Amino acid sequence: MKSIQKKCRKLTQPFRVTDGKEFRLKKIDPDDTLWLKREDKSRVAEALEEGIQALAEFQDRLYADNRWALLLIFQAMDAAGKDSAIKHVMSGVNPQGCQVMSFKAPSAEELDHDYLWRCFQHLPNRGHIGIFNRSYYEETLVVRVHPELLERQRLPAELVTRRIWDERFQDIRSFERYLTRNGIVVRKFFLHVSKEEQKRRFLERIEKPEKNWKFSSTDVQERGFWREYMAAYEEMIRHTATPEAPWYVVPADHKWFTRAVVAAAVIETLASLELAYPEVDKDKRKELVAAKQALLEE
Amino acid sequence: MKSIQKKCRKLTQPFRVTDGKEFRLKKIDPDDTLWLKREDKSRVAEALEEGIQALAEFQDRLYADNRWALLLIFQAMDAAGKDSAIKHVMSGVNPQGCQVMSFKAPSAEELDHDYLWRCFQHLPNRGHIGIFNRSYYEETLVVRVHPELLERQRLPAELVTRRIWDERFQDIRSFERYLTRNGIVVRKFFLHVSKEEQKRRFLERIEKPEKNWKFSSTDVQERGFWREYMAAYEEMIRHTATPEAPWYVVPADHKWFTRAVVAAAVIETLASLELAYPEVDKDKRKELVAAKQALLEE
Repeated sequence: MKSIQKKCRKLTQPFRVTDGKEFRLKKIDPDDTLWLKREDKSRVAEALEEGIQALAEFQDRLYADNRWALLLIFQAMDAAGKDSAIKHVMSGVNPQGCQVMSFKAPSAEELDHDYLWRCFQHLPNRGHIGIFNRSYYEETLVVRVHPELLERQRLPAELVTRRIWDERFQDIRSFERYLTRNGIVVRKFFLHVSKEEQKRRFLERIEKPEKNWKFSSTDVQERGFWREYMAAYEEMIRHTATPEAPWYVVPADHKWFTRAVVAAAVIETLASLELAYPEVDKDKRKELVAAKQALLEE
Repeated sequence: MKSIQKKCRKLTQPFRVTDGKEFRLKKIDPDDTLWLKREDKSRVAEALEEGIQALAEFQDRLYADNRWALLLIFQAMDAAGKDSAIKHVMSGVNPQGCQVMSFKAPSAEELDHDYLWRCFQHLPNRGHIGIFNRSYYEETLVVRVHPELLERQRLPAELVTRRIWDERFQDIRSFERYLTRNGIVVRKFFLHVSKEEQKRRFLERIEKPEKNWKFSSTDVQERGFWREYMAAYEEMIRHTATPEAPWYVVPADHKWFTRAVVAAAVIETLASLELAYPEVDKDKRKELVAAKQALLEE
């Protein structure tokens, strides 16, 4: 098992941020694929298949062990490949132990509560993997880029000061530390796509009829705020990357590479927990033997 | 309105803890009634009536203003008067804007989550008063006095260290700071009853048929851990009393006095928010005028 961890680490290490102080988004190239070439694509896909099998085994043990939970958070610009990464990396796992929650614009009831409220309800139980497709981090992204959204939250005016983003970062760090202390392991992914690649994917969504449903013209409007979004993502990572809840800033111009890195990060994390099937003690053993006998004598 | 705040403050000031460092439980006498004598009981009851009316008015404004929420947390030994304080102080308020949640021993599903999970779901919406009859503080009280309960939480062994109580205090402080920053005002009450008065009340529960339902023999067993509980309460208050989320350590040997202090604390808090009915702007005024005309012309 240790060898799989090593293999994974080679892929994840360059993109893993555990201390945000020195982080600069421009240091990560969306087009990067490390030592892997486009010609390696099919080889990488094969390796991913193997990885997914390993992941499914780890999940089975996570479930049986029933002490830890894993929370995976995905954030990105539109068309960066969040949905596809979740689909391709997690399709091998037993859905009984895995729940995905997509957070859209908050409802009136949700706006009536604090911003963590709706996320809290969907935290994974022990033994489960929970996936947040977008999350409370939107509070420091879209809400920051569009301050009119902050107004809709109906916060008392005296609480909305210039310090609000720093306060949110601090609260989120504390929240994730609390989760970690309670056995919920947090891993965060920012899929880093370039503005050019996003344009290409949007055009594809418009041109291919089977992809039309994914297209929304408001997505194109948001491109106008690209610079502001990149600044907000950088700030977010700088302030909330911690050793216990690291960010993976994953190059996202090549989907096959994105998936490989995400899979590696999930496997690496589960492998580090040293999950064990619950041990059968003497009493339980006796129980099993007695039950077997009863069944055979039926 | 300022005068009501002053009046309230006289009752609450001696029992309000905003910085736990110097706090010692023995400094508060459960039998204390300040300058009020047993003969004043009916006068105090009258004042309470007036207070409750003021409270109801404040709640109406809280609801209309729809920006702040108020979370009241009650903790105490059995028979200290939590239920009766909630009943007598809050009975005047509109139940549409007030929800009480009693936290009992956690269910299997609740144990499968982090300990704040079940409380989070019941946080009050904007404009509402939420009351927690017991709360996440039990994690530092009953769970601390009975470590076998901690085992039932199925935390990974490596997370259960000697630092766990300090970690929980830190997490709770951070959590309440987060709530405060998001417009949920937190006030906490420890109803401080003496061991002798508890005995008297238990005997009453046993002797009076209409109170029998309130009696449980496990409550009597817990008296055996009195010293441990008092140490746990003191630690809890020392570590979680903050200016934004103070503890009120309320003498509880005289129910009429307990209620007066609790009511004063709630009124004082609501009065400090300077709640306003939403202002009607020009457009809204026009809308009202037009609607009136339409109704009259029907």
